[in-house]
Amino acid sequence: MDTADLGLPVDVPSTALFTDRYELTMLQAALRAGTADRRSVFEVFTRRLPGGRRYGVVAGTGRVLDAVENFRFDGGVLDFLAQHRIVDEPTLAWLADFRFRGDIWGYPEGEVYFPGSPIMRVEGTFAEAVLLETVILSILNHDSAVAAAASRMSVAAGGRPLIEMGARRTHELAAVAAARAAYVGGFATTSDLAAGFRYNIPTVGTSAHAFTLLHDSERDAFVAQVDSLGSDTTLLVDTFDVAEAVRTAVEIAGTELGAVRIDSGDLLLLAHRVRQQLDDLGAKGTKIVVTSDLDEYAIASLAAAPVDAYGVGTRLVTGSGHPTCSMVYKLVARAESDAADAPLVPVAKKSMGAKTSIGGRKWAARRLDADGVAEAEVVGSGPVPEALADRTLLVELVRGGEIVAREPLDAARDRHAAARAGLPLSATQLSQGEPVLPTEYLQA
Amino acid sequence: MDTADLGLPVDVPSTALFTDRYELTMLQAALRAGTADRRSVFEVFTRRLPGGRRYGVVAGTGRVLDAVENFRFDGGVLDFLAQHRIVDEPTLAWLADFRFRGDIWGYPEGEVYFPGSPIMRVEGTFAEAVLLETVILSILNHDSAVAAAASRMSVAAGGRPLIEMGARRTHELAAVAAARAAYVGGFATTSDLAAGFRYNIPTVGTSAHAFTLLHDSERDAFVAQVDSLGSDTTLLVDTFDVAEAVRTAVEIAGTELGAVRIDSGDLLLLAHRVRQQLDDLGAKGTKIVVTSDLDEYAIASLAAAPVDAYGVGTRLVTGSGHPTCSMVYKLVARAESDAADAPLVPVAKKSMGAKTSIGGRKWAARRLDADGVAEAEVVGSGPVPEALADRTLLVELVRGGEIVAREPLDAARDRHAAARAGLPLSATQLSQGEPVLPTEYLQA
Repeated sequence: MDTADLGLPVDVPSTALFTDRYELTMLQAALRAGTADRRSVFEVFTRRLPGGRRYGVVAGTGRVLDAVENFRFDGGVLDFLAQHRIVDEPTLAWLADFRFRGDIWGYPEGEVYFPGSPIMRVEGTFAEAVLLETVILSILNHDSAVAAAASRMSVAAGGRPLIEMGARRTHELAAVAAARAAYVGGFATTSDLAAGFRYNIPTVGTSAHAFTLLHDSERDAFVAQVDSLGSDTTLLVDTFDVAEAVRTAVEIAGTELGAVRIDSGDLLLLAHRVRQQLDDLGAKGTKIVVTSDLDEYAIASLAAAPVDAYGVGTRLVTGSGHPTCSMVYKLVARAESDAADAPLVPVAKKSMGAKTSIGGRKWAARRLDADGVAEAEVVGSGPVPEALADRTLLVELVRGGEIVAREPLDAARDRHAAARAGLPLSATQLSQGEPVLPTEYLQA
Repeated sequence: MDTADLGLPVDVPSTALFTDRYELTMLQAALRAGTADRRSVFEVFTRRLPGGRRYGVVAGTGRVLDAVENFRFDGGVLDFLAQHRIVDEPTLAWLADFRFRGDIWGYPEGEVYFPGSPIMRVEGTFAEAVLLETVILSILNHDSAVAAAASRMSVAAGGRPLIEMGARRTHELAAVAAARAAYVGGFATTSDLAAGFRYNIPTVGTSAHAFTLLHDSERDAFVAQVDSLGSDTTLLVDTFDVAEAVRTAVEIAGTELGAVRIDSGDLLLLAHRVRQQLDDLGAKGTKIVVTSDLDEYAIASLAAAPVDAYGVGTRLVTGSGHPTCSMVYKLVARAESDAADAPLVPVAKKSMGAKTSIGGRKWAARRLDADGVAEAEVVGSGPVPEALADRTLLVELVRGGEIVAREPLDAARDRHAAARAGLPLSATQLSQGEPVLPTEYLQA
């Protein structure tokens, strides 16, 4: 089947090709060597949080489940692999029947994470688990980066609503995932209609400078907008002169005017002036929306300003300086031999440099202090200590290839708010620092 | 129609929803006000290049053409818009019949650009042109950011081939576009199979640390790989001890070994040591591929090292510090009145701050000095001076809604190499500085 009919600007028939070529060549070599069926455990984790962040946010888990479910090699894909001699005939035959039949556990979506947290664990034969590396990392690295930025922005905004409006600043489908991740991180709405369509996230938006410039005067533009969208619309007031525009806006829409939007200039100063002017005009209920290169710091700097909502674009969808997480997907254990009942042995890269990792299939738990506040991320590969048994973090996501943990997006959003609230207060400092929880390793 | 069958992790039936909600509400208000049919000219440009870069690279043009062609509102989309009351009935009826029938001109893909360059110009009714804002900006902002990083990396690499391997660090479909943009910018190959499938970019890749760790010894792993992939494969030599691995690799594959890959540690030091060792073992033709958080600076620092190819991931797909361009889509001219033959008048936002722009429908030309080297980007809104007539930059892309400028991706890649070669030598300095060409405005 071909996606050309669908008008998508991409033409990729299955998630199976969101894969680096080496996964297929490793599969081929392992099939031939007889090692492809060795039971294997891969884990997703990061070695550090970016840029002095205090916590990370797991996002994309729901999308990973969709991708795993749809990871099949159909005719068109197999033809491509054959034609370009990417793998040999026995491997093609193996791929034609492939579906993932292993198990996946992971931090539930919206949960926070720290360096070394086993965010996701994929267990199955080497063959089936190695194939998922790229698509899982793509989704988690992208979505978690956006969610982390969103979470910081939502902290900075206090209770004020945040609008995601970054679609124009990122790839058109990354934008849809970014709106989803932003929602998990605490954003209220999105400007992106595709995100509304796909994930049912509430959409917002009224007008741009072009609408004002289309008309013979700002007054004509405001009349046109209010006439069509009602007086509770949001009028953009910074095309020419803000004070003049606010006066005209209230004159046309009345004191019931929904909101005004300021998209340039000194937002702190303008917000105060516009609030005063609106109040003086009797439009005490008219809200002020600000947009213009905002990030968590700019949002925080407006905390004392009379702002009712923030629209955030570029800095959100690019992870506020950290557009990707450094999550990796590493083989941490595998069957000791080719025997069907061979026990698992831990494995890890051992060479020099910062890229070493800790072998063994791991659990994780968040230890609380006497007040119920999180105090450590505990990761281990032996039995879970009894005191931590009800604080373990990984949940079952896929059992024998079947998805067992679908949930509405609001569940992830609520979980994130709760998880963040359970961290020490210093978690929500915007300044650079150490992760707010230390990661403690309990060796088996 | 529904994309669920296709196994895509997204479910968006048309490019029409890669749109910010305000474009539709502006359309509704303009339809009602009778201004929707005013002839309008929108231009895409940037106010600055990111981070002291010397030039920008236009990429994504071909994807824009696909997106415009497929920008239709079908039943499912219209139902969504109606159900969520995003627009009113007259607007829904208008959208049901919509296809873009206007004209698009632009810098051809691969061309370089500077602040103020009119990278793309969309002309039609306000209604049809305003709708394309988000999807055009998404594509150009993302793809051009990656292409700019790729171009700098390809300069730094000299003639050595660059491998794109960043799929795991970005959204799974952004990755496909990133591989495409990297190819335009000068990369030779990609690890991303979807990019090979969709754009016919050559794919490469052999094995990861997991493959070595799966086996009972590094030797077993190398034997398995060479047995399956042949002696001209690339063996990964940094899982345990590099010197030991290189010795084993040549022992198993012989002096015909294709390449070794080093993915951690001090690459400069290791490349020299490994080259010496390979030469001593008689494997003088065996190549050295390095990968590991490379960017243009790291690549440049390896210029004197015996490296044969570079694999680049994270820093490429995230634009080497600048994951998006700041391209905007602005109304620069529109019909003076609602009359069918009304002349165009220039328009521009006029308020304070850095967001002002220059009105009027523009042309651009690259002026050469006596030696044939580019010396200025000339932008104007009046007639083109005769001396620049054969140096104009915008080409016709869409005429009356029909795509007229499809081309193979190699044409864009070749054009980029030629355009870059036509710039002053300082264009290829990696250090921060001013744009290598000044932009001169010739007012009408």
